[in-house]
Amino acid sequence: MSSSETSRWIVGVDIGGTTINVGIVPSEGGSPLAFRTKRTESQRGAKFVVDRVVKMIKESIQEVMKGEGHPLDAFAGVGIGSPGPLDRKTGTVISTPNLGWRNFPLRDLIQNAVGLPATLENDANAATYGEWWLGAGRSVNNLVGVTLGTGIGGGVVLNGEIYHGASDAAAEIGHMTINSTGRKCKCGNYGCLEAYASGPAIALRAIEGLEAGAESILTQMAPNLEDITAETVFEAVVTGDRYASEVVSDTAKFLGTGVANVINLLNPEMVVIAGGVTKAGEHLMVPLRAEVRLRAFKVAEEACRIVPAQLRTTAGVIGAAACFKKETYGEV
Amino acid sequence: MSSSETSRWIVGVDIGGTTINVGIVPSEGGSPLAFRTKRTESQRGAKFVVDRVVKMIKESIQEVMKGEGHPLDAFAGVGIGSPGPLDRKTGTVISTPNLGWRNFPLRDLIQNAVGLPATLENDANAATYGEWWLGAGRSVNNLVGVTLGTGIGGGVVLNGEIYHGASDAAAEIGHMTINSTGRKCKCGNYGCLEAYASGPAIALRAIEGLEAGAESILTQMAPNLEDITAETVFEAVVTGDRYASEVVSDTAKFLGTGVANVINLLNPEMVVIAGGVTKAGEHLMVPLRAEVRLRAFKVAEEACRIVPAQLRTTAGVIGAAACFKKETYGEV
Repeated sequence: MSSSETSRWIVGVDIGGTTINVGIVPSEGGSPLAFRTKRTESQRGAKFVVDRVVKMIKESIQEVMKGEGHPLDAFAGVGIGSPGPLDRKTGTVISTPNLGWRNFPLRDLIQNAVGLPATLENDANAATYGEWWLGAGRSVNNLVGVTLGTGIGGGVVLNGEIYHGASDAAAEIGHMTINSTGRKCKCGNYGCLEAYASGPAIALRAIEGLEAGAESILTQMAPNLEDITAETVFEAVVTGDRYASEVVSDTAKFLGTGVANVINLLNPEMVVIAGGVTKAGEHLMVPLRAEVRLRAFKVAEEACRIVPAQLRTTAGVIGAAACFKKETYGEV
Repeated sequence: MSSSETSRWIVGVDIGGTTINVGIVPSEGGSPLAFRTKRTESQRGAKFVVDRVVKMIKESIQEVMKGEGHPLDAFAGVGIGSPGPLDRKTGTVISTPNLGWRNFPLRDLIQNAVGLPATLENDANAATYGEWWLGAGRSVNNLVGVTLGTGIGGGVVLNGEIYHGASDAAAEIGHMTINSTGRKCKCGNYGCLEAYASGPAIALRAIEGLEAGAESILTQMAPNLEDITAETVFEAVVTGDRYASEVVSDTAKFLGTGVANVINLLNPEMVVIAGGVTKAGEHLMVPLRAEVRLRAFKVAEEACRIVPAQLRTTAGVIGAAACFKKETYGEV
């Protein structure tokens, strides 16, 4: 084997609504090298975003080539994670409200500009696959990832493979109905998990309570209530604020209901919770697990560990690289 | 190949809370021969039920041997479907409230009494696999079955195989929460799909409305309101009764919410609705599909057909035989 075959690198790209992360992942697994982060600034248009991604990829490759003394052909290709829905076969993003793209041939644009083969995967699937490959899920075959941020994304790994479903649309955990006549969701429906437990939903519930007269350190932390975010609530919890604890505990109950639904349906070995909400730590995890114990079948609940993600900001990059590896070589 | 290998038969056994069905299924697929049905009468004890099942199996085998002139070794074995949760590996029913069994070695008891190898599978999984093999799902790889009866059971078939999960507990669709503070369910939780759309739940909702003064032919059909069952409601719908139609339409909305959750999570090619509720026909299916269109992601909803089951009473027997075939020969 030539050295280019024994020491291949894979570029991992994680495109989000607010940030782009790029890093170079050793194909046998390991922390990304030459990791870099930039704002997405999608309002500047699709071409701007693609140009930025391509520049970041080239810079990362250059950095590793210099540092490690590898030739360009030591880089196998580029794994891209992007919000969806998308068509993996054609490498096209079908639509993504956050970025404003429609039927956008993201994979081929990057592939052609970089000169390396590329694959495209849903961002939440990629992050879940990253946790399965090198994070919290290293020891299991079947796991479900729930990523809590501006929205709630999900990924399902079965027998060590991402489960995609009939049209690449599986694992939309955020839009599972948990209260059929409940809160209006951005998607137009009522009672989606996301309408209760996404970052903006947590902030909104906190503000509603404060407006109704709840006492909390939050009013000092953000005299202008509109400035309250989920992060503010988590910070208040750590100071011991009672009202903020209630908001997080309610969040945990809603999340626990959604996670119990997933467990009753898929009976996975593990559920990995990722994203900003996990900053609340055991304030979140303890009541979440308690709610799951109430609502999930005992046989299924006992078989499932519910754990926070381990890879944090690098999960998407590592996972996107894992997806490239899986699609190109058939195994990870 | 000997004739016993070219023309093997598989015994299918479907044990339910109220009825036992047994039939002999051609291993290449086809309608069960020597099909017979008896009451389960589980109150008479586990031994009584097993003896009854064994007798039914022996009678069915005798009937086919005589009719078709086959020797005993033309029968490959027995596939058993039973309520769970169960442990397929050991062939044990872990617990089943309806039958009152706990850690009951059902498979080996039948295997030893009949003298043929046997396999054990969850009844709702078996029925779903039957629909996949020879029923509504013949043309698809991925489907989800929802069986509506005294309870609501489910089965998930992925890539032509039953998906079992980490502890044989997958596909508990009836206990998916659709209203986290809603109706109390028999399982102890609140707002399970089963608490709204099982047979008894449909009857209960109908009775509640009548007690609150709703006008309906139901009060003539069952002057004693307690006698109203889901069947009575479906019969009233067919006569054009407006109130009964409302009850069925509400049922369809609850079901549609549960089915949309399944579609958002698993993105299957098909959802097969089975059981008594399907007697309401398009009165049920039309509003059910409408609710799914509202709540499921477009890309996932468009990829999924929602259809009534085709095999009716024989699905469990055919599916149990298919499970035996799959477990024994590796393919169906």
